[in-house]
Amino acid sequence: MMARLPGLGPRSARRAVLHMIKKRGMLMTPLADALHSVAATARECLNCGNIGTTDICDICASEKRRTGELCVVEDVADLWAMERAAVFKGRYHVLGGTLSALDAIGPDELRIPKLLDRVASENITEVIMALNATVDGQTTAHYIADSLEGRVSVTSLAQGVPIGGELDYLDDGTITAAMKARKAF
Amino acid sequence: MMARLPGLGPRSARRAVLHMIKKRGMLMTPLADALHSVAATARECLNCGNIGTTDICDICASEKRRTGELCVVEDVADLWAMERAAVFKGRYHVLGGTLSALDAIGPDELRIPKLLDRVASENITEVIMALNATVDGQTTAHYIADSLEGRVSVTSLAQGVPIGGELDYLDDGTITAAMKARKAF
Repeated sequence: MMARLPGLGPRSARRAVLHMIKKRGMLMTPLADALHSVAATARECLNCGNIGTTDICDICASEKRRTGELCVVEDVADLWAMERAAVFKGRYHVLGGTLSALDAIGPDELRIPKLLDRVASENITEVIMALNATVDGQTTAHYIADSLEGRVSVTSLAQGVPIGGELDYLDDGTITAAMKARKAF
Repeated sequence: MMARLPGLGPRSARRAVLHMIKKRGMLMTPLADALHSVAATARECLNCGNIGTTDICDICASEKRRTGELCVVEDVADLWAMERAAVFKGRYHVLGGTLSALDAIGPDELRIPKLLDRVASENITEVIMALNATVDGQTTAHYIADSLEGRVSVTSLAQGVPIGGELDYLDDGTITAAMKARKAF
């Protein structure tokens, strides 16, 4: 079963299990307890889809976050990445994936209807698309931007040279995007 | 001597030399000839610092390149990266490095005075900073932008999420830059 975790193959799963068996009391039982407790308490925020232990997550409930800005992310890992950067003070909306014709994932399989509801009811002034710069991510961003057109200001993360990036190591697409979006110094 | 090439340690240099000795006629002599001929003919473009076989490089001499736009890069590898992306139709200016107080590299050690000359004499309308998004690169870009202030429009490559980039794998600085430079969808 360990081998079914992402990033663990059969071999590393066996190593991890053996390690845990050796440290039964120190590691295996506490880990099992922790997994049990998370499995029992973790739930998706009814508002934004973030994972927490309450019906409404800490970010949605916080009075310190701006209520007018909504940052749309693909999944909770992206929300965590945004929070690590500590640059965004509004609230989030976690889609739970991207649109995909191949996998038959349409808007209703994601948290898109809920997003439209929130924009209609929550007095949102700006929706910021923080979807991955992949084909699926950008397709989804375009779909959402079209759905929201005229109702709210929609922006997206800038595309370009990453911080510390050297031109010689960048792909052509990024250089092209950075060139097209060049800005006054 | 092979071990003094960048990217070759003593061990890989020995392997390369042994390989060449085995293929003396097929590889070693032709390579020696080629190195000789490049050493004899390669020179820096007097105008932009690009490497070519003539005093004025092909790009500077080309009538198909726009003359009003100048793209400032750190070195020839970056110029090649821009050319691979094929997004820029103007001409270049190769600085030959970045300003560095530590290494005692000031403006006069780089091709910065020549850049100011070119802006004054060549009817340039836009100088595009395509320096690396590193500390040294950006310091140099700021210095040049200050020197050119009021004389010409200075722009720089956009910083942000690289194409194909996923938020979860990006550093905080890039997410912060992308967020601050977000643009209307």
